[in-house]
Amino acid sequence: MIVVIGSAEKSHELNNPFTAGERIEMIRQALRAAGVDPLCCVLVPVPDAEAHTAWVSQVVAYTPRFDIVYTNQALTRRLFLEAEYEVREIPLYMRAEYSATEIRRRMLENGDWNSLVPKEVYDFIREIKGDERIRDLAKTDNAEGEQGGRKGRS
Amino acid sequence: MIVVIGSAEKSHELNNPFTAGERIEMIRQALRAAGVDPLCCVLVPVPDAEAHTAWVSQVVAYTPRFDIVYTNQALTRRLFLEAEYEVREIPLYMRAEYSATEIRRRMLENGDWNSLVPKEVYDFIREIKGDERIRDLAKTDNAEGEQGGRKGRS
Amino acid sequence: MIVVIGSAEKSHELNNPFTAGERIEMIRQALRAAGVDPLCCVLVPVPDAEAHTAWVSQVVAYTPRFDIVYTNQALTRRLFLEAEYEVREIPLYMRAEYSATEIRRRMLENGDWNSLVPKEVYDFIREIKGDERIRDLAKTDNAEGEQGGRKGRS
Amino acid sequence: MIVVIGSAEKSHELNNPFTAGERIEMIRQALRAAGVDPLCCVLVPVPDAEAHTAWVSQVVAYTPRFDIVYTNQALTRRLFLEAEYEVREIPLYMRAEYSATEIRRRMLENGDWNSLVPKEVYDFIREIKGDERIRDLAKTDNAEGEQGGRKGRS
Amino acid sequence: MIVVIGSAEKSHELNNPFTAGERIEMIRQALRAAGVDPLCCVLVPVPDAEAHTAWVSQVVAYTPRFDIVYTNQALTRRLFLEAEYEVREIPLYMRAEYSATEIRRRMLENGDWNSLVPKEVYDFIREIKGDERIRDLAKTDNAEGEQGGRKGRS
Amino acid sequence: MIVVIGSAEKSHELNNPFTAGERIEMIRQALRAAGVDPLCCVLVPVPDAEAHTAWVSQVVAYTPRFDIVYTNQALTRRLFLEAEYEVREIPLYMRAEYSATEIRRRMLENGDWNSLVPKEVYDFIREIKGDERIRDLAKTDNAEGEQGGRKGRS
Repeated sequence: MIVVIGSAEKSHELNNPFTAGERIEMIRQALRAAGVDPLCCVLVPVPDAEAHTAWVSQVVAYTPRFDIVYTNQALTRRLFLEAEYEVREIPLYMRAEYSATEIRRRMLENGDWNSLVPKEVYDFIREIKGDERIRDLAKTDNAEGEQGGRKGRS
Repeated sequence: MIVVIGSAEKSHELNNPFTAGERIEMIRQALRAAGVDPLCCVLVPVPDAEAHTAWVSQVVAYTPRFDIVYTNQALTRRLFLEAEYEVREIPLYMRAEYSATEIRRRMLENGDWNSLVPKEVYDFIREIKGDERIRDLAKTDNAEGEQGGRKGRS
Repeated sequence: MIVVIGSAEKSHELNNPFTAGERIEMIRQALRAAGVDPLCCVLVPVPDAEAHTAWVSQVVAYTPRFDIVYTNQALTRRLFLEAEYEVREIPLYMRAEYSATEIRRRMLENGDWNSLVPKEVYDFIREIKGDERIRDLAKTDNAEGEQGGRKGRS
Repeated sequence: MIVVIGSAEKSHELNNPFTAGERIEMIRQALRAAGVDPLCCVLVPVPDAEAHTAWVSQVVAYTPRFDIVYTNQALTRRLFLEAEYEVREIPLYMRAEYSATEIRRRMLENGDWNSLVPKEVYDFIREIKGDERIRDLAKTDNAEGEQGGRKGRS
Repeated sequence: MIVVIGSAEKSHELNNPFTAGERIEMIRQALRAAGVDPLCCVLVPVPDAEAHTAWVSQVVAYTPRFDIVYTNQALTRRLFLEAEYEVREIPLYMRAEYSATEIRRRMLENGDWNSLVPKEVYDFIREIKGDERIRDLAKTDNAEGEQGGRKGRS
Repeated sequence: MIVVIGSAEKSHELNNPFTAGERIEMIRQALRAAGVDPLCCVLVPVPDAEAHTAWVSQVVAYTPRFDIVYTNQALTRRLFLEAEYEVREIPLYMRAEYSATEIRRRMLENGDWNSLVPKEVYDFIREIKGDERIRDLAKTDNAEGEQGGRKGRS
């Protein structure tokens, strides 16, 4: 099984707060916590492509060969379907709670988010001060748009 | 006459669903349907530039020489004016109906859009399943932001 | 003192209407108008980086050596803090009025903006027709999204 | 028939002296000179991709649909073969003489190059001072490497 | 242990013939063939950065945390030293023979290269026709430079 | 007078060993050493453009307004001539000795290079260990090509 870590170049954005390397560490810890054999998975960070039409070939270039694509994202699904891959949905578990959006929301509001992630992941995020980073990213000088940073920010 | 197909690298976005190649095919079919001599036009796909200030020189580099720019886009108009080109408006015909936005809206709602495009273009879009693509792009997993895809997406 | 002119590749956007070169001219005129010795400052335009994580090393690469970072932007502050720089706030003067957002708002509405900038800067903006540019950028053909222009526009 | 004008973003290099737009004008003139119906061809400038693995999908995205690829370039052939396209060679006519390399060599040495191109193309190149441009590009200050210019120059 | 697969976006070049995904598969097979516990390693493809000065922060962003860098490349060593990492050399085994350059040379000349790689890697390369790809990439139409392909090719 | 520091994103290459920021510091020290009023000059780092045809508009966008271009580089001269700027040569002083190439050659061979630069520049380069950097960049593992680093390296 290959786990693609998409938008690998992104981090330090409210919807994408962690670097690819931090996401790799968290996924490895979550798998270990769940008792999954880490041998089962190849984690591959893949940066965004220059164009949506290059996305499929970029994923293919960065990863070992695969036959079936699992995704719940409409765009990813569409692009792989047009490239004639078999695409399947990922069954989600208690979507309303166990979603990155909900977890980030609670971090922002200093709510209880530790019950939503494995203890190992919680410890990791605290160690790298990830929740503090998210709260910092939410603060913006409202009188002015942010300027420094990443190309192509909206 | 040169027809610039802008943002040529873009596709598979709700406001830009078709590839440059698909747009070339549609324009050629629309011209043929309108009985226009296809010799009249040179269609040139031009990707977005790294900076607005490079946009004029990029259009100039990709296209045969020209003297007058026809556009209704405020930014394009401004950039060519500052580069000392003559810029003119394109008279639009029944703008409320014959607009890409209206056509895409009807596709999304499975409304009647075939009356708004030439039959040849309608057949082409159906053949490449373009309306299905647009409906797919409109579906997003609302609990999470889309991640995979094109650099610089907002 | 080094003044970083961020997003140096951007211009001709409502929130970023001026080129890096125009911003250099305005800052030099404002310093001169304030009687500041221009020798005190090195103005350095720095383009946005490909990734937020590359932003700090890009600023370091473009500028003479420095020890302390002054910024009021949450993202810039966060990135430099994580890279172990000392980061300080810039005390702002009458923020509600003397903000770029307020000045641009008045330009758009043909209001009185000349009282908010030094006379030299006012003359410069008029000379390059900067207020006209901002009013032009605000005009968009509402039936259609803008297309030509800069990669990664949202 | 679709004619792809590759490396469309390149120009002003010794091996790639002309812009995509200039190449479009020359090919149109050569076709006209040869009595070929210009309706036969769609000329499509395609910029280089970020990665070789994205090249095929980029060509597909920029062009109308096609089934067979004609090329004499080993890399292009290989990439399309791996993407399962049929690839055929282009029979060349008097290769030693009618080659861009030979023509550029003669331009550099002020030799007789007008016998190697159609009169219309000769006139066009003279009009845009293309031969002078090539001789200029060949001049370099040998004590120093060139610096300004295009990203990724070797 | 983290193994960085550098220049991850490159492939189909004589000195870089394989995609990042193919390189991942080969390294995993070589580790398995050597009886190394695959759990020991995290393989991380990292694309080249926009600037050498961004390379260190890009590696840091793509990978789990690390303390020591092992490399025999002078540039990589220099960049990490300047960023105050500890950098060590990798002891090489029978360098003259077991080098990628020597293996590629033998592939090109249809020589005996299977004795230089583990059987599993040999089988993989034959399965994806990697040796044929390398021989294809070496063929170039000498009268003309290659044009299509990757940005920034020299 | 505006001094453009070209290829501002480059550094850590044998022909381009210093960052833009380091080059700014050196030029300021050389000017001061020569007794030139630093007010005379605006130093502006400008990164390479995506295409040669965008280079002129990029320089214009990054710099205060100017009328005449001084350069000894054939490409820069050509591009500004085609954009209808007046271009002049820079008279060089004792070119054989006072050239960056000669200075770098001596650094590599541990020769006497301090007589070729102002004392302040010599001290700066020693302080940042610039000569050591150049000697490091010259060392390459000859059996293998370098891989990590900057996009578009040849």
